[in-house]
Amino acid sequence: MANPLRMRLRSFASSSASALKWEGGVSLVQGASRGIGLEFVKQLLEKNEKGHVIATCRNPNGATGLLELKNQFSERLNILPLDLTVESTIEESAKSITERYGSLNLLINASGILSIPGVLQPETTLNKVEKSSLMLTYEVNAIGPILVIKHMWPLLKAGGGFGTERDVAVVANLSARVGSIGDNRLGGWHSYRSSKTALNQLTKTISVEFARKKDPIACILLHPGTVDTDLSKPFQRNVPADKLFTKEFSVQKLLNIINNTKLQDNGKFFAWDGQEIPW
Amino acid sequence: MANPLRMRLRSFASSSASALKWEGGVSLVQGASRGIGLEFVKQLLEKNEKGHVIATCRNPNGATGLLELKNQFSERLNILPLDLTVESTIEESAKSITERYGSLNLLINASGILSIPGVLQPETTLNKVEKSSLMLTYEVNAIGPILVIKHMWPLLKAGGGFGTERDVAVVANLSARVGSIGDNRLGGWHSYRSSKTALNQLTKTISVEFARKKDPIACILLHPGTVDTDLSKPFQRNVPADKLFTKEFSVQKLLNIINNTKLQDNGKFFAWDGQEIPW
Repeated sequence: MANPLRMRLRSFASSSASALKWEGGVSLVQGASRGIGLEFVKQLLEKNEKGHVIATCRNPNGATGLLELKNQFSERLNILPLDLTVESTIEESAKSITERYGSLNLLINASGILSIPGVLQPETTLNKVEKSSLMLTYEVNAIGPILVIKHMWPLLKAGGGFGTERDVAVVANLSARVGSIGDNRLGGWHSYRSSKTALNQLTKTISVEFARKKDPIACILLHPGTVDTDLSKPFQRNVPADKLFTKEFSVQKLLNIINNTKLQDNGKFFAWDGQEIPW
Repeated sequence: MANPLRMRLRSFASSSASALKWEGGVSLVQGASRGIGLEFVKQLLEKNEKGHVIATCRNPNGATGLLELKNQFSERLNILPLDLTVESTIEESAKSITERYGSLNLLINASGILSIPGVLQPETTLNKVEKSSLMLTYEVNAIGPILVIKHMWPLLKAGGGFGTERDVAVVANLSARVGSIGDNRLGGWHSYRSSKTALNQLTKTISVEFARKKDPIACILLHPGTVDTDLSKPFQRNVPADKLFTKEFSVQKLLNIINNTKLQDNGKFFAWDGQEIPW
């Protein structure tokens, strides 16, 4: 039988050891093979020369952008396979991170789906709403990120802000302004919109528990703006040029928000410019 | 090939005919075998002696409450089988209603799940969040009602407020205050909360399209309060007696809101007392 006292001592020892070991902090970017996720990995590695980054994606062997960064940053970057829709792969990642690092200071859930040619298309009318599209979008955009937080929670608790300039560990979930109900004036995109709204509520719900337990973790939701990535490519036609951001610009803005996150930001929803977005 | 003009004329003729035919209006209550749904059926039949009510549930043969009302109200009540999780049964219901009534003036989505012994339990902590619970709850609480609206849309358009005291047809989706993100101070109940939040966003999204198309339909979201039903039974312990409503009281209040709904209420979220709830 496990001895609770011994377990607590071991957990304390391991968290102290990891905190000392990982000066500069340990960040996990989930959904890192391309787009905003890949850019987060790049800027985290470039801007913090002591920081370690774990990048996850479904198929590391095909993630050329990550493999290039691996060549450049060597042991400061660790690429792990993780498929949001298969919870065992999330558990495997958590186990691997626990063994190698013992703590996390930042978790960015960057993955997300909007359209898949021949499979998923943002709805332009209620008549085009299909159960399969809603279920798939909820699975990836709302449920997946929450399962990642669930399994990384002990690592984030162990890490807090230790080794970083923040007082707290940060969980940053990539949401979107179209997930705001109060701001919904255009309609359409039923699956994507409501998946992000569900993600907002799940994140808020988790933030309440973290606050009640006095965990050194702040959960925030981020709207990156409309960013020139594969996700937005088919829908950029009506976006004014000055409203279509580069990945570099958007991630720079979002990292600025993340780096300045305080405990009292826990449970908030910020746009790239730091403005709060209504629910 | 269909002739668009002839189709338009036929649609006009059939909607006029149905409107004349159904003085008192036609209401559909989805999820009507027990609880709030059954009480809606009862009060709709009792309070409007000319009104017709269609009540749907998964298994009409086992719906003793509805069968008793059928004995009492005879041809003013029509019971149809509908399983929210099987879209073909929704289509079958829409077909049957189209043939018999040709129009609808009110659709109440009253079904909802919170717990199922041995299968689904409201989460008290992130550690208990399971993908299967989230998926099932989203399927029933968020997606199902939207599919019902999708298939009943032509009937609601044909009906509008005709035969009732309202100017518009009403879609009333049973939501819950715990679905509000802004009002979430307690946390927990991840699946139920976020399913209702997704329902709120989907309803808002649909309301925007109805408004743009100038359809004579208002979609509203309703919080019934904590009502003494099978759904709330396992969770009533901490509810003060004066905050636990009878079905009769809650449905009376909600019908009052429904009967007074105007086009400008489209897309709003009301509590039983008529107060708007923040998103």
